[in-house]
Amino acid sequence: MYYIGVIGAADCTPEVYRLAEEVGREVAKKGAVLLCGGRGGVMEAASLGVSQEGGVAIGILPGIDRREENPYLTYSIVTGLNDARNAIIARSSHGIIAVCGGYGTLSEIGLALKAGVPVVGLKTWDIKNPRGENIIPLAKQAEEAVEMILSLAGEGRVGNGDAG
Amino acid sequence: MYYIGVIGAADCTPEVYRLAEEVGREVAKKGAVLLCGGRGGVMEAASLGVSQEGGVAIGILPGIDRREENPYLTYSIVTGLNDARNAIIARSSHGIIAVCGGYGTLSEIGLALKAGVPVVGLKTWDIKNPRGENIIPLAKQAEEAVEMILSLAGEGRVGNGDAG
Amino acid sequence: MYYIGVIGAADCTPEVYRLAEEVGREVAKKGAVLLCGGRGGVMEAASLGVSQEGGVAIGILPGIDRREENPYLTYSIVTGLNDARNAIIARSSHGIIAVCGGYGTLSEIGLALKAGVPVVGLKTWDIKNPRGENIIPLAKQAEEAVEMILSLAGEGRVGNGDAG
Amino acid sequence: MYYIGVIGAADCTPEVYRLAEEVGREVAKKGAVLLCGGRGGVMEAASLGVSQEGGVAIGILPGIDRREENPYLTYSIVTGLNDARNAIIARSSHGIIAVCGGYGTLSEIGLALKAGVPVVGLKTWDIKNPRGENIIPLAKQAEEAVEMILSLAGEGRVGNGDAG
Repeated sequence: MYYIGVIGAADCTPEVYRLAEEVGREVAKKGAVLLCGGRGGVMEAASLGVSQEGGVAIGILPGIDRREENPYLTYSIVTGLNDARNAIIARSSHGIIAVCGGYGTLSEIGLALKAGVPVVGLKTWDIKNPRGENIIPLAKQAEEAVEMILSLAGEGRVGNGDAG
Repeated sequence: MYYIGVIGAADCTPEVYRLAEEVGREVAKKGAVLLCGGRGGVMEAASLGVSQEGGVAIGILPGIDRREENPYLTYSIVTGLNDARNAIIARSSHGIIAVCGGYGTLSEIGLALKAGVPVVGLKTWDIKNPRGENIIPLAKQAEEAVEMILSLAGEGRVGNGDAG
Repeated sequence: MYYIGVIGAADCTPEVYRLAEEVGREVAKKGAVLLCGGRGGVMEAASLGVSQEGGVAIGILPGIDRREENPYLTYSIVTGLNDARNAIIARSSHGIIAVCGGYGTLSEIGLALKAGVPVVGLKTWDIKNPRGENIIPLAKQAEEAVEMILSLAGEGRVGNGDAG
Repeated sequence: MYYIGVIGAADCTPEVYRLAEEVGREVAKKGAVLLCGGRGGVMEAASLGVSQEGGVAIGILPGIDRREENPYLTYSIVTGLNDARNAIIARSSHGIIAVCGGYGTLSEIGLALKAGVPVVGLKTWDIKNPRGENIIPLAKQAEEAVEMILSLAGEGRVGNGDAG
């Protein structure tokens, strides 16, 4: 079983919302578990997409009150860690899709790559290394992003364990 | 939906293992989600009990490698926080059952009570306040413990939110 | 150099405040660094005692705003982790003195003992193991508590490293 | 009193080491406290620079053993949180200087900006927002970087509190 993290900002445009929703649907169609930050915007949209396909979405919440969760999560974890919870999403995922997003998403990309977890970008930060290369592969569509991340997650699977 | 945390040591006697297994079965029979530390001993036994009843057990792992999980978890979260993950189990549960246990269990009791989350003990630490009263109610059997914690969780429900 | 954690509740009686203040003075007189939760009550009193002797008190704050610190800290660390910060105080100390205290203090005792860090109690929780023995030694006076914890910290020193 | 975080990779070239060392010296000359991840490379070099000027360097360590600290720290905090400790450095700093660095540094930049903490870059990631603008100002020399971050930290000071 794969855990795929979908990250992005709590505020997003309707266009990005629809894109994240489609990502959620594709994750669920592939039988993977969606991990996210559990709140609104991209996180909510991805959870909604998962729920439309009868999949499982787990939200890793930053605050101390479960009521900050979005209504489409299957399960939620209340961390009380504020932004330090981003490291948990990175560590718990076999691969991460960054959808659009702000500074929290930027931190998540860094934390995931540091932990050796692959990241695929979708209309997100365009970050180049000193040699001018993108540090993460970029997808153009939701389905493509999910296929890319599952492929990358499969290659890295040995090192990250398996829940079943 | 209720989240019930079951805490206890990673090493335990066969007798305690069977007790925790029964707690897991009762949690699942009541339709609650089991949260635990995800590893062996009491955590494994409770997860096994849940799996026997077709319920859901989520493990909140301390390390950075999912492979430390026990084989009976439905889902696992890889925190990399070491013992600081105990605070997440406390915050994420509507109520906690402490089964036997060592110092980690003691810390979990303190963290839960600090967060306003009720705790029921089962062959666990007998801790008295300065007035000589037990700080947590003690149960004698698995079924009794689960009924007690669900009753207490119900009373405290307003403050801790609800996943659906 | 030793780091001695002093833990206790944010609300305390004037008598306990004076006791914690004396503990802080003794810690500073011995040349140890005081670690605490950085807030009021026992934490503030111990920091005040340290400042009276020209010592160093470091507060590990739970919230996201440095302004919750008490005015007697030499330095403060802003964790944003809420109660999960208790695990940091436990891990960072060579020994801990529990002064009076509530559930947070109880959790700290458990976290420290789990991490192999010695704890001495001063008018705090009286916790017995199944054989009826106190799990931590109890002191009656501030100076005695500091001497006891420095002695215990010295024995455990090999395993916990040294800042200089 | 200002807390200035200096972040960068645990492995670095001799050139970057000398640059970080100079940053440490400048931070200490200005009377600010240096915060860092406490380990080698850029973290060690900045701590060394601070020690040369008689300043204070505090290391926020990721592991559970103080012995991973570099030898130039004044104080160290043992978090046991792995990469989640990056969020503590971000929250605890009035401003951050990113020196060269890898994915951990990238995450730190994101965490700091998310928390509203200014960041200045020195031979580090060149990250542009969708409008093609650098998301952090870039300095060319150590002294310039420290002057820039202290100026930015001063502007943001109201919101981040003050240790003295």
